[in-house]
Amino acid sequence: MGVSLKDIAERAGVSLATVSNVVNGYRPVGERTRQRVQQAVDELGYSPNLSARHLRRGRTGLIALAIPELTNPYFAELAEIAIREAAGLGYTLVMENTAADGDAERLLLDGSRRQTIDGLILSPVRVGRAEVLDRRAGNPLVLIGEGVYDTPYDHIAIDNVAASHAAIRHLVAIGRRRIAFLGAPPGDDRQSAQLRLRGYREALDAAGLPFRPQLVARTDGFDRTEGRRAMGDLLALDEPPDAVFGYNDLVAIGALRALTEAGRRVPEDVAVIGIDDIEDGRYGNPTLTTIAPDKEAIGRLAVRRLVARIEGTPVTGPLTVQTPFRLIRRESTGGPTT
Amino acid sequence: MGVSLKDIAERAGVSLATVSNVVNGYRPVGERTRQRVQQAVDELGYSPNLSARHLRRGRTGLIALAIPELTNPYFAELAEIAIREAAGLGYTLVMENTAADGDAERLLLDGSRRQTIDGLILSPVRVGRAEVLDRRAGNPLVLIGEGVYDTPYDHIAIDNVAASHAAIRHLVAIGRRRIAFLGAPPGDDRQSAQLRLRGYREALDAAGLPFRPQLVARTDGFDRTEGRRAMGDLLALDEPPDAVFGYNDLVAIGALRALTEAGRRVPEDVAVIGIDDIEDGRYGNPTLTTIAPDKEAIGRLAVRRLVARIEGTPVTGPLTVQTPFRLIRRESTGGPTT
Repeated sequence: MGVSLKDIAERAGVSLATVSNVVNGYRPVGERTRQRVQQAVDELGYSPNLSARHLRRGRTGLIALAIPELTNPYFAELAEIAIREAAGLGYTLVMENTAADGDAERLLLDGSRRQTIDGLILSPVRVGRAEVLDRRAGNPLVLIGEGVYDTPYDHIAIDNVAASHAAIRHLVAIGRRRIAFLGAPPGDDRQSAQLRLRGYREALDAAGLPFRPQLVARTDGFDRTEGRRAMGDLLALDEPPDAVFGYNDLVAIGALRALTEAGRRVPEDVAVIGIDDIEDGRYGNPTLTTIAPDKEAIGRLAVRRLVARIEGTPVTGPLTVQTPFRLIRRESTGGPTT
Repeated sequence: MGVSLKDIAERAGVSLATVSNVVNGYRPVGERTRQRVQQAVDELGYSPNLSARHLRRGRTGLIALAIPELTNPYFAELAEIAIREAAGLGYTLVMENTAADGDAERLLLDGSRRQTIDGLILSPVRVGRAEVLDRRAGNPLVLIGEGVYDTPYDHIAIDNVAASHAAIRHLVAIGRRRIAFLGAPPGDDRQSAQLRLRGYREALDAAGLPFRPQLVARTDGFDRTEGRRAMGDLLALDEPPDAVFGYNDLVAIGALRALTEAGRRVPEDVAVIGIDDIEDGRYGNPTLTTIAPDKEAIGRLAVRRLVARIEGTPVTGPLTVQTPFRLIRRESTGGPTT
């Protein structure tokens, strides 16, 4: 509805030049000022005449975020952050669902969307390092998640092994000894699950606990349905676990459901912890203890790096950025009810 | 990786001509055959040289699905269906998050993305009928959801009033008399909430139950947080409700959490029903009874109508299509466990 840069400047209480610098990316602007301008942009629903500006520079103004599971709330929450960040930098973020399909990932890597997107943020699941290195397309790429390491591309992820350590240490600290891992990959095709499994083994070792292969429950995917099914397998063991570390919150939530159906008390009989801090976990019965990655940092950094690569502006800091995470203790491991 | 139409024909067990008809949309193909071809397309990750084909026809091959809440699983589930349908028709579906912001909705309606998208599927929240009628852009538009009725555009939605009737009839049938409505809009700006509230009043009337204004809990948004807060208000009444009808599953899940925290039994003390049939509701404790819209029908129809309008192919059937819904009884109203 004809929102102008002037409207934004008034709303944000800054000069027109500052708004222009933020919106057009002409000059760097201090973080707090940038945020104020971006808030005004969001509130007013400003959409700059991007097409014209981007076209002049041979760009489309579209960037893609390719995720493996649209219905995993982790990615929806991450996408919401990335969309906001992209808008503040003058780009429209498009979401692509690879559905964890190798061919879909390869097509994106090889530039099948080159005419329509300026750059790609990819959370790889099926493709490995070699395929990333061999990609045919030369357009900017930022990797997120734990699928592929050591490439010449920017990569934003948490330290999965360290995250697993934190989860296991917590379960050990509350007195658990038979700790299961729920959500091992069926083959060797999900790198992040391998890393989390490695962290689990190392942490058991550090705590002086034996690694018991029967306590590693494999799942065919990482959703609630599979988490529930695999928890059923663990409960059928002669000596079932007294704690479960889920590959992600979704499988952990599935496990909670299986425990409820089996009449087991959480955390008294079995304590449960996940990874992701999705909102569902905060509203369950019981609420879910989790390792919370800093989604805000991941989403914003990924977009900023990609835009910097597209526009050829200097990037400071290492190619691979490990973002922080923290343990949030809730009812499923004896944390407070609220 | 160089998947050809021939590969698809082999995988689907159909002729090359048939694959071409499906992928390029040259001729209509029977539904079952089309599905087989589409499955092969999905499995092989085939991406036709769409850019060239669309460019020849002055199109980009991109269509947008603009939703108000990316983190509401209902929209993620709907988007997954729409993405699949669009791919089968040779289009890439881009997701746009309006964040239920009026200016964002207006910009999309007015064609701010005209150069980059061929058409728009919009779930309007803030804009009304007048603004849709007044839109400046002439590119194809399909409306979904219950925000705006009676326009010259295709519109796919469930019958909200009838859905509310079904929910209330169920609660009355299990003996409930003090039935609350959770998630009334703060103003008059959310048409679907108004319709669901109207259905609630009508159904109470039909059941011979009085309408009690204090049992209508307003929420500032339609998420878990607000559902939990508003349920707390209802529990603080001198005579709290014995059943709650949530505007959607998310507010109903928030209500379940508030009931757990308050030590109320579900459904014995308070029965709960929502709308949407999101997966979260199937894995809660208790599981959530819901009115399930036919998301498959909504997602597929919306995309097909839009593509037909873009390509100028004939459309049969009325402009407004009311898709089916059904009641799924789960533990929160005394349904079966598992």
